[in-house]
Amino acid sequence: MSSIPDLVVVGTLAFDDIETPAGRRSGLLGGSATYFSVAASSLCKVGLVGVVGADFPAASRMLLEGRGIDTRGLEVKADGRTFHWAGRYEGAMDQAQTLATDLNVLSTFTPRLPEDFRRARAVFLANIDPTIQGAVLDQLLPPEGGGPRLVAMDTMNLWIQVAQPALRKVLARVDGLFLNDAEARQLTGKGNLVAAGKALLGLGPRFVIVKKGEHGSFLFSPERFYALPSFPVEEVVDPTGAGDTFAGAVMGFAATSARHDAARLCEAMLYGTAMASFTVSDFSLEALRGLQRAQLERRVEDLRRFVQP
Amino acid sequence: MSSIPDLVVVGTLAFDDIETPAGRRSGLLGGSATYFSVAASSLCKVGLVGVVGADFPAASRMLLEGRGIDTRGLEVKADGRTFHWAGRYEGAMDQAQTLATDLNVLSTFTPRLPEDFRRARAVFLANIDPTIQGAVLDQLLPPEGGGPRLVAMDTMNLWIQVAQPALRKVLARVDGLFLNDAEARQLTGKGNLVAAGKALLGLGPRFVIVKKGEHGSFLFSPERFYALPSFPVEEVVDPTGAGDTFAGAVMGFAATSARHDAARLCEAMLYGTAMASFTVSDFSLEALRGLQRAQLERRVEDLRRFVQP
Repeated sequence: MSSIPDLVVVGTLAFDDIETPAGRRSGLLGGSATYFSVAASSLCKVGLVGVVGADFPAASRMLLEGRGIDTRGLEVKADGRTFHWAGRYEGAMDQAQTLATDLNVLSTFTPRLPEDFRRARAVFLANIDPTIQGAVLDQLLPPEGGGPRLVAMDTMNLWIQVAQPALRKVLARVDGLFLNDAEARQLTGKGNLVAAGKALLGLGPRFVIVKKGEHGSFLFSPERFYALPSFPVEEVVDPTGAGDTFAGAVMGFAATSARHDAARLCEAMLYGTAMASFTVSDFSLEALRGLQRAQLERRVEDLRRFVQP
Repeated sequence: MSSIPDLVVVGTLAFDDIETPAGRRSGLLGGSATYFSVAASSLCKVGLVGVVGADFPAASRMLLEGRGIDTRGLEVKADGRTFHWAGRYEGAMDQAQTLATDLNVLSTFTPRLPEDFRRARAVFLANIDPTIQGAVLDQLLPPEGGGPRLVAMDTMNLWIQVAQPALRKVLARVDGLFLNDAEARQLTGKGNLVAAGKALLGLGPRFVIVKKGEHGSFLFSPERFYALPSFPVEEVVDPTGAGDTFAGAVMGFAATSARHDAARLCEAMLYGTAMASFTVSDFSLEALRGLQRAQLERRVEDLRRFVQP
């Protein structure tokens, strides 16, 4: 049995304190790599690379491993505390207001990929300092040497603002970029999202997926444009992690595909959108942790009907 | 040759002064019934009911009649001035800021439908005082007596605020409601748009179409939910009239259909969405006035591809 994951994600694990109109919770399991890997675990074999402190509970690790996630790349810093984020959502919950960010162990994080992980079919660089993203790319084997044939990344407003040269260097080295609508506008300076999406293709990636929260997502590639609405959710409890969940399911679906062309990515976006609709229906990973593949497939079928004229 | 229109619209004709990031224009031809009827005229025979003042130019009337629009229901008040609206759009142009509204001849408008118009296959009550909308309904023949088998309406925040009882009475008498996302939330008190759409079905109409501007549209009916993104437009010049254009093409397509079930309405929404993308690409009716059916059909086919995984 091979111990090479289908998909490797490098990103954050966190404790979140969250306030939404539906309630307030503290010490929730969160982080980009957490949402991503749990979402992807319904679809493929995932390897996780990240860092936590001595305060990371065994139960959280068990949650990940219970989903079949390979945690050999999870570094535990015995003398540190896990990254912590506190945020609040109001009204339509379309934007998080950050109340606190404590980097803790993240401030000195240098990801080291286990040997097997360098041969994964696909790799995702979740939102993190672009210099670190670049250092991860340096560790991958080339595709012709057994390395990943699909590498994609996410980013955020902070890096666009303070580390854009490094970010652009990484962008030129990946196949795909996931980012939200505000980030797409910020990185390109174009107010029109269609124009922004096209401009992003000029920065290197062969596909760009713009996440628009409750308004769905766009795929831009040289071959095609694709627009997918979000899954209709009547009661959104907590939107935290929806974007990472989406990316996790998109990449999880794509990782096990022989092709990664636009048609396959469109199909993958149905899975991402369906998966994210579970995440937002409860706090933290509550709705994802026990999710069965069959439930996901049913929701994908519902989504297909909802967007079919 | 029958002189009964397929589709009758009752609404406003206006002079608009518009400011957008793309420029500033004054004295433009505008109004809900204008956009609606010109859009619908690509798809069916339209009858227009509205009022203008002595200042309404012959060229504007010729524009309408040149599209085959039956203007027998267009009242000209020799001693009055045409309704005037001034508005401004900034940034993402997702909301108009009203700078001036002069009702003029609209303040005493009592629509009178020509006899033929009472037998149209479909009728649309564009945004106007709900009491007037009710008075139009009173003039229609019943479906079993040769009257319209499809009646739909639009409304706006003002009427939801100041005339909600009258509005609810009209709502209980129509087949369909078109309104934007903010209005759907306002009328139902529900922040979640999916919940709002479902609640609106409880007020009478058998279908509700929620217009979300650049984010597309939703159809709610007892049989199905449908979500359609907007057509990607790289350079939006002036969003004025996009919603009326959308409704005009939806109703224009539906008016000539034997069935008005959900599947047919979804199809109609493709036409509405494609048509609205022309409107926003220029000021006033510039992009619509010479539009050929073939151009519209090509854009509908493009849209179908854009939303097909």
